[in-house]
Amino acid sequence: MIFFNSDYLEGAHPSVMQKLAETNMEQSIGYSCDPYCDAARAKIREVCETPDADVHFLVGGTQTNTTVIASILRPHQGVLTAVSGHINNHETGAIESTGHKVLALPSDNGKITAKQVEDYYLWQQNDESFEHIVQPGMVYISHPTEGGTIYTKAELTELYATCRKYNLPLFIDGARLGYGVMADGADLSISDVAHLCDVFYIGGTKVGALFGEAVVILNPALKKDFRCIMKQRGGMMAKGRLLGIQFLALFEDNLYLKIARHADEMAYQIRDIFAKAGYPFLFTSPTNQQYPILSDAELSELGKNFGYEYWTRVDDTHSGVRFCASWATTQDQVDALRRAVNDLHK
Amino acid sequence: MIFFNSDYLEGAHPSVMQKLAETNMEQSIGYSCDPYCDAARAKIREVCETPDADVHFLVGGTQTNTTVIASILRPHQGVLTAVSGHINNHETGAIESTGHKVLALPSDNGKITAKQVEDYYLWQQNDESFEHIVQPGMVYISHPTEGGTIYTKAELTELYATCRKYNLPLFIDGARLGYGVMADGADLSISDVAHLCDVFYIGGTKVGALFGEAVVILNPALKKDFRCIMKQRGGMMAKGRLLGIQFLALFEDNLYLKIARHADEMAYQIRDIFAKAGYPFLFTSPTNQQYPILSDAELSELGKNFGYEYWTRVDDTHSGVRFCASWATTQDQVDALRRAVNDLHK
Amino acid sequence: MIFFNSDYLEGAHPSVMQKLAETNMEQSIGYSCDPYCDAARAKIREVCETPDADVHFLVGGTQTNTTVIASILRPHQGVLTAVSGHINNHETGAIESTGHKVLALPSDNGKITAKQVEDYYLWQQNDESFEHIVQPGMVYISHPTEGGTIYTKAELTELYATCRKYNLPLFIDGARLGYGVMADGADLSISDVAHLCDVFYIGGTKVGALFGEAVVILNPALKKDFRCIMKQRGGMMAKGRLLGIQFLALFEDNLYLKIARHADEMAYQIRDIFAKAGYPFLFTSPTNQQYPILSDAELSELGKNFGYEYWTRVDDTHSGVRFCASWATTQDQVDALRRAVNDLHK
Amino acid sequence: MIFFNSDYLEGAHPSVMQKLAETNMEQSIGYSCDPYCDAARAKIREVCETPDADVHFLVGGTQTNTTVIASILRPHQGVLTAVSGHINNHETGAIESTGHKVLALPSDNGKITAKQVEDYYLWQQNDESFEHIVQPGMVYISHPTEGGTIYTKAELTELYATCRKYNLPLFIDGARLGYGVMADGADLSISDVAHLCDVFYIGGTKVGALFGEAVVILNPALKKDFRCIMKQRGGMMAKGRLLGIQFLALFEDNLYLKIARHADEMAYQIRDIFAKAGYPFLFTSPTNQQYPILSDAELSELGKNFGYEYWTRVDDTHSGVRFCASWATTQDQVDALRRAVNDLHK
Repeated sequence: MIFFNSDYLEGAHPSVMQKLAETNMEQSIGYSCDPYCDAARAKIREVCETPDADVHFLVGGTQTNTTVIASILRPHQGVLTAVSGHINNHETGAIESTGHKVLALPSDNGKITAKQVEDYYLWQQNDESFEHIVQPGMVYISHPTEGGTIYTKAELTELYATCRKYNLPLFIDGARLGYGVMADGADLSISDVAHLCDVFYIGGTKVGALFGEAVVILNPALKKDFRCIMKQRGGMMAKGRLLGIQFLALFEDNLYLKIARHADEMAYQIRDIFAKAGYPFLFTSPTNQQYPILSDAELSELGKNFGYEYWTRVDDTHSGVRFCASWATTQDQVDALRRAVNDLHK
Repeated sequence: MIFFNSDYLEGAHPSVMQKLAETNMEQSIGYSCDPYCDAARAKIREVCETPDADVHFLVGGTQTNTTVIASILRPHQGVLTAVSGHINNHETGAIESTGHKVLALPSDNGKITAKQVEDYYLWQQNDESFEHIVQPGMVYISHPTEGGTIYTKAELTELYATCRKYNLPLFIDGARLGYGVMADGADLSISDVAHLCDVFYIGGTKVGALFGEAVVILNPALKKDFRCIMKQRGGMMAKGRLLGIQFLALFEDNLYLKIARHADEMAYQIRDIFAKAGYPFLFTSPTNQQYPILSDAELSELGKNFGYEYWTRVDDTHSGVRFCASWATTQDQVDALRRAVNDLHK
Repeated sequence: MIFFNSDYLEGAHPSVMQKLAETNMEQSIGYSCDPYCDAARAKIREVCETPDADVHFLVGGTQTNTTVIASILRPHQGVLTAVSGHINNHETGAIESTGHKVLALPSDNGKITAKQVEDYYLWQQNDESFEHIVQPGMVYISHPTEGGTIYTKAELTELYATCRKYNLPLFIDGARLGYGVMADGADLSISDVAHLCDVFYIGGTKVGALFGEAVVILNPALKKDFRCIMKQRGGMMAKGRLLGIQFLALFEDNLYLKIARHADEMAYQIRDIFAKAGYPFLFTSPTNQQYPILSDAELSELGKNFGYEYWTRVDDTHSGVRFCASWATTQDQVDALRRAVNDLHK
Repeated sequence: MIFFNSDYLEGAHPSVMQKLAETNMEQSIGYSCDPYCDAARAKIREVCETPDADVHFLVGGTQTNTTVIASILRPHQGVLTAVSGHINNHETGAIESTGHKVLALPSDNGKITAKQVEDYYLWQQNDESFEHIVQPGMVYISHPTEGGTIYTKAELTELYATCRKYNLPLFIDGARLGYGVMADGADLSISDVAHLCDVFYIGGTKVGALFGEAVVILNPALKKDFRCIMKQRGGMMAKGRLLGIQFLALFEDNLYLKIARHADEMAYQIRDIFAKAGYPFLFTSPTNQQYPILSDAELSELGKNFGYEYWTRVDDTHSGVRFCASWATTQDQVDALRRAVNDLHK
């Protein structure tokens, strides 16, 4: 079996593992107060070109989303997101468990627009019963989105301007950030992202690390006591240096970007395999997640040797599924998939 | 000005006020452990024909919805409701503030069906990622709904059967229960309601009381420690007897039902005023809330002398609004409205 | 039986009831946006000599404590209180239910000192593990306290200075405020209290109202969106005018102060009854709550005709209990108690 | 510098690291549904001699404590613990953030007794105001405790019997379980622990793993939907296999027990170093944490070359501190400490 189900099927990029092994018997104080974390923070600030940013390390995505959002909202506020947002669908109500409503905006491609945010904000504020309606307190987007799509610089600039206009902190879930900034057609670098939001994170778990997400807080008003809230939410790792070491490895010689680009290129091959074979797609994705639509019979056949993630039913006999490439995907794996897809038509 | 905005514009029915005044200087122990509350509980059990029900008294609707739902759900569970449900839209995220997601089902008329509940439940349970998706833990409906519509006995029977099949407690928000059971065409009595759900409440605030909601818990599994959760949520009134006294007054000689019927009849006149004048309605309501659609110019004209509640924009020049009758609405008030509506066309 | 268990045994002062009756059939818009509430707000600002204060009306004490505290604290913060504080012991974990730890300071008499607050604050801030320890985010005191004791102006001035020094909002639970400001030896008026804290409330439920607490927010930073949080916590009364009307009645001709003084004077008689008979007390209280210590045999005898609240076991054969006077206590009731206590020694 | 501050200063035991490296490029499905986790579960069930136990893997201690406790308690319930319990003092209010009060019982040595639990339970249940007091809903203990002490089999047997008598699930925090079961004088094996509680965990982070805690649920009533709550609380690791692999390595050839015993023996040497030099201790600890009391001047001198954890002030010139040994502590490190302590007296 070859698995394309997700981008967290393997362990860590070998350089990350090597650095963890090399430092294994060193002694460091806990809770990310060690020199490795400090160095990783400095490196990330440099990459972001944001010398004043606060950088924190957490273990996983749901934990990070919950901690950031809980640190920002007041009790009566909710978070605006695309209806397909991870926080709305796939975190077992983690945001609600902190007391806040997820305010879902319709979206065909996983993105939301400045106008949607403005309209919602103004509707709530101007309603006679505004005190009875959850107040939008921030905006959450993913880049890339759950559909693999990415924001353009123009879109993000406009969205962030709207957020600032209405004092809605903008939080970008970058669990797959690398795959987004290295995508064909992408005009947003990590630094651009860092300058067009209030807080975001650089995903490690899905882009070469064993685990780990690096939260970058740009807005000074959001920095205070963040570590306390991390601790409260179970997100302050005892051996915090493990996170610093991994991010140091990932940002040495641009490894993070190189392996993300590799994944995107593997994904383009996957996309082309299905496209050339005539299959439509759920989303037009320039990143490492591809969503072809196949007949259930074909999926069953393909499923004998290949793993994919079931996404959604399209009609009585067809489904959209996800094929992911990652930093670990090999040309051999993709070639095997190519042969198998081509065989479907014989 | 004559106000039709809501059914909580006046104080209490005079019989309720009188009973409060008569008992005012008596001494009773607190927290609804007094003889008036006990008598009211007994009376309500009798009306419901449910001798084993637990009856509790709370002050208002949001408090009641939050307390009941928080007492039932486990942390990872959410509550199914119509998208128009009060808990979804008009309680400032009270349910989410207790940690639970509101799972909104589409609805044109404020009602949801057994099939919707079953489909959602089975979808969540059977999804590969079911552990990442909020689990439906109960069902909330209103009777009458926010649109003034009511469930038929057949609909409620089917819905409750589905709820029992999947172990989803059914909770009925009866903030306006009286107006529902006395509506033209209604085939559900209070006793019927009490036998077709796990917990419901008899609304006092909007049906003759100064304030107060009587929660009736039928399902023995939901009874334990309810008073502790009431207290925790600020819903255990110090002078709890005030609630017992009011419900005693409301259920003496069927006052509750009589005044509810009066309101419905006033509402039918209001409905006919607009219908005869050719106005369409947002919902087909047999209860005390009527939702005509008028032009904004007409609403502006009418608004000079009459209060109504703005509901929703229909198109660029028309809006749907709510006119409520209540136990306190008089024939004179309705007649004045009739003249004014008729004058709109002159 | 004559009950001295608490100060919420009767309904409302007759003037309050009368005003509720007089206005009963008027129509007002809901949620405390009516003219009665506005007038009561103005009156309270005048009494407090704080023209810029925000005034909000809630129904009961636990609800008020929870709403105010939840509106102030960030997620990682707790509230400092005397170990005997109502929020620590008698609200079924209401504060914790909003996510916040109650940080209890030792106290013999229900009061806490500026030094205790400072020491705790500095200990937490300076601990190496401060990020792992709940941060004090505000201070809660009661005036009078659960033991009937009151703060002096010097004490409160010093406490508030410390709170401001460390940016800890000071919240005063004034559920029995009237009984405190009218006590023998009291040197804090309502206006003084209003100038020595960030937020407090004027208790109505226990001082002449049917129900109701008036929250007065002095600190501008705490005002924003308070109504939204009230609504979320089920504390925004539909017929909000009921609260405005009651507080208007209570502050007409200083009724609030007069009836509070009456209660204190009745309590002094009760105190003297027990003191002259040689009984010690749990606390030295100048307010309406008195805590004599009697033998269990005497309590049993007294309990045949008089209600009191059991407070605490003192030794194997003695207990401390509470006798409360209120606005409603009559000379006849006190005289009957006097005879009964004197009879205990015969 | 040589650090004895804690038992999480280094990475993982080399065998653990090796197994992670060996499996690094394998593909596995996520969320602990892989064969390594299944094998680790089977191994842990075998060690515990509890074939029906559910075993789950989480990343860290605070996360584990919060997830387990939140999965058990109803809203109005709290958790009983020693006042020194980690959940009471060092988790930034994590338990309260899930809505529950931590009910702290006094303790000199970190342990609580069956009698304390019974007395508290009966006091709350029998108080007139029991509905206003947080109900104990479970019991949390640590083994070893924060002071390095351990329960005897007799003590734990009695405690668990009391817990069962009152239907209070007993949860044992075993973050340092290995150091406890291998201590001199210990009469509780891992299997004994597993048979004397409802749920516990085997700590990996502090006993040889890079990170990870294995939760073992014995009580069938506590098993349902635990994974959903893990996910909601951010504790379901994407690459869950990392946890399974580590626990497999730790339980191969009893590695877990061997390295724990090594740490205890190193700690006994540390204890003897201070004891022979005449220093008293905060606690009598038979495990890897030792708490000598030194003068501040001595601590300052020692601190030039050795790390320790500041614990508490004893008097104006003396403090109690913690020296930890771990699986990674070497004889050379201990010898260096011996020389330094002996030099303090020269």
